Amino acid sequence: MKTAKRNFARTLDLAHGRVEMSHGAGGRAMAQLIAELFAAAFDNPYLATGNDGALLAHAQGRLVMSCDSHVVSPLFFAGGDIGCLSVHGTINDVAMMGATPMYLAASFILEEGFPLADLRRIVESMANAARTAGVPIVTGDTKVVEQGKGDGVFITTTGVGVARDGITLSGDKAQPGDAILLSGTIGDHGMAVLSQRENLTLDPPIVSDTAALHGLVEVLLDSGATLRVLRDPTRGGLAATLNEIAKQSGVGMMLHESAIAVNEPVEAACEFLGLDPLYVANEGKLVAICQRQDAQRLLEAMRGHPLARRASIIGEIVEDAHCFVQMTTRMGGRRIVDWLAGEQLPRIC
Amino acid sequence: MKTAKRNFARTLDLAHGRVEMSHGAGGRAMAQLIAELFAAAFDNPYLATGNDGALLAHAQGRLVMSCDSHVVSPLFFAGGDIGCLSVHGTINDVAMMGATPMYLAASFILEEGFPLADLRRIVESMANAARTAGVPIVTGDTKVVEQGKGDGVFITTTGVGVARDGITLSGDKAQPGDAILLSGTIGDHGMAVLSQRENLTLDPPIVSDTAALHGLVEVLLDSGATLRVLRDPTRGGLAATLNEIAKQSGVGMMLHESAIAVNEPVEAACEFLGLDPLYVANEGKLVAICQRQDAQRLLEAMRGHPLARRASIIGEIVEDAHCFVQMTTRMGGRRIVDWLAGEQLPRIC
Repeated sequence: MKTAKRNFARTLDLAHGRVEMSHGAGGRAMAQLIAELFAAAFDNPYLATGNDGALLAHAQGRLVMSCDSHVVSPLFFAGGDIGCLSVHGTINDVAMMGATPMYLAASFILEEGFPLADLRRIVESMANAARTAGVPIVTGDTKVVEQGKGDGVFITTTGVGVARDGITLSGDKAQPGDAILLSGTIGDHGMAVLSQRENLTLDPPIVSDTAALHGLVEVLLDSGATLRVLRDPTRGGLAATLNEIAKQSGVGMMLHESAIAVNEPVEAACEFLGLDPLYVANEGKLVAICQRQDAQRLLEAMRGHPLARRASIIGEIVEDAHCFVQMTTRMGGRRIVDWLAGEQLPRIC
Repeated sequence: MKTAKRNFARTLDLAHGRVEMSHGAGGRAMAQLIAELFAAAFDNPYLATGNDGALLAHAQGRLVMSCDSHVVSPLFFAGGDIGCLSVHGTINDVAMMGATPMYLAASFILEEGFPLADLRRIVESMANAARTAGVPIVTGDTKVVEQGKGDGVFITTTGVGVARDGITLSGDKAQPGDAILLSGTIGDHGMAVLSQRENLTLDPPIVSDTAALHGLVEVLLDSGATLRVLRDPTRGGLAATLNEIAKQSGVGMMLHESAIAVNEPVEAACEFLGLDPLYVANEGKLVAICQRQDAQRLLEAMRGHPLARRASIIGEIVEDAHCFVQMTTRMGGRRIVDWLAGEQLPRIC
């Protein structure tokens, strides 16, 4: 007991220490972890108050709220890690509602024995992503589970934002005749994680596209195009996202394979592993559905933003009572792009 | 593949089925789990839109945000389960900021193989707690990890509320002379979980005090007393909470042991296991610190609420550069109530 107390008085050993059960027990060790790691990295006045919740500014407008747990494995991959991913993912979900993300909450489930050096790397990546995006992490929580009852670190983030006045985007608003736009290449995030997991040595490596898209969304909202739906095609890839929207709106879709960009190394890796990039996760892309006559204007607005240089119009909404998503192939045929039935890539985000 | 597709077309087998990796993969199986279990139980118009975020009402006032991950083990215990606990815990953290909780987000990390029947029981308990509290679960997420990489189910909830105008409560506002009130007995939740975990057969069993405290908080705010701090003494118990506040405010505290109520079976179990109830978690109690001359008025307001019948004035704030929490004991002595140094009861919430 005495030794334990002496330990707590020292500074946390972030270079060689490990997560202990006491870091989640509500006592001195937890207070130290929060002060020396989380509060130091996330550094903002809300968190600094040290209360169990954050008192924020007066809100003006309709609130938007979204949350995501992140369980990606491995925790580090080319182009990112679970830390920045957990910030980008939730910012994007808030932005897809036509809202400006304002605040994030972050909750950690740590496995006993996890190296504090890795945790610091993750927390600093989160802090950097939040700072770059201009969305502070204002409140949080830390729990610790015994070795073998978790997997290093799981991070749940929740975002709150304010919807732009007059804008209501929703997956049930697509109408026959509308155009479907995609902001860039598909499959980069999923294949970056998978190639890391499978120790595929690719040269150059496939890099995750993980990015915060709220700046791009502002540009789209400013373009004056009549937007119906925005959504980021993450788990289940573009195919899952489009099928969801088709079902919500009660419409069909006709896609054009030749308009859907895939980076060459992603295409090669997918072919090698027998995967279809349409079902592979993205973390820095969005699908926009807009009124047909605004498609060109929206496309130009997209391409003017650094995160959407390779944007394209990939298809259109059609009437279809079965809500099928179909695609004209490069070969001139036509196929159905079905829901993902089973499980293609687990723990991709 | 064909078999799999046929399975997904059937209704989810909530009686005998188990969580599969596909339930977190973003495809048809996940959509089915969300529709037939989560959306059905949480049933509200925000969730029903099926978007990745919720578009909520126009907010009026200063926002409050708080989040907590829940990893309690075992998942079910006398008086509650991880489901209702995850709703109460976050509602309480929002309420302690002097705010009315408005919305909850809930994110699930499920372990492959977890029985769907248990998941249903948990989700229905959450839904019931949220409905009773009048705080809807408006958005959520589900992830699945492989067997041995989780522990049944972890639930992270985030709450958003609006602070009452003119009220700013914070742990750094306690002043020498202020009175410290406690809303009831201590140690009930922690000992309920622990006795379940250790298979202690107590008759009658110790029952968790898990409860949503926002109604009680409304009563306290309405009382007209000048409140400084509200906080719920969860992990680390009353001792951790009071030490946190003492440190935040730069003050000392003098408690009176005889004023701190402990249910007899809790006291007996603590004695048997060598635990101090001051360090045992509560999930339906609060500490209130107020101006000395308002203490009696606040006490009467508390006792008028069903969740605080056994409320008492347990001590006062004193000047102390060391920020010590001290206590006059029943024996007439005096002791220091220190921070919890190590780990007493892991995974209590």
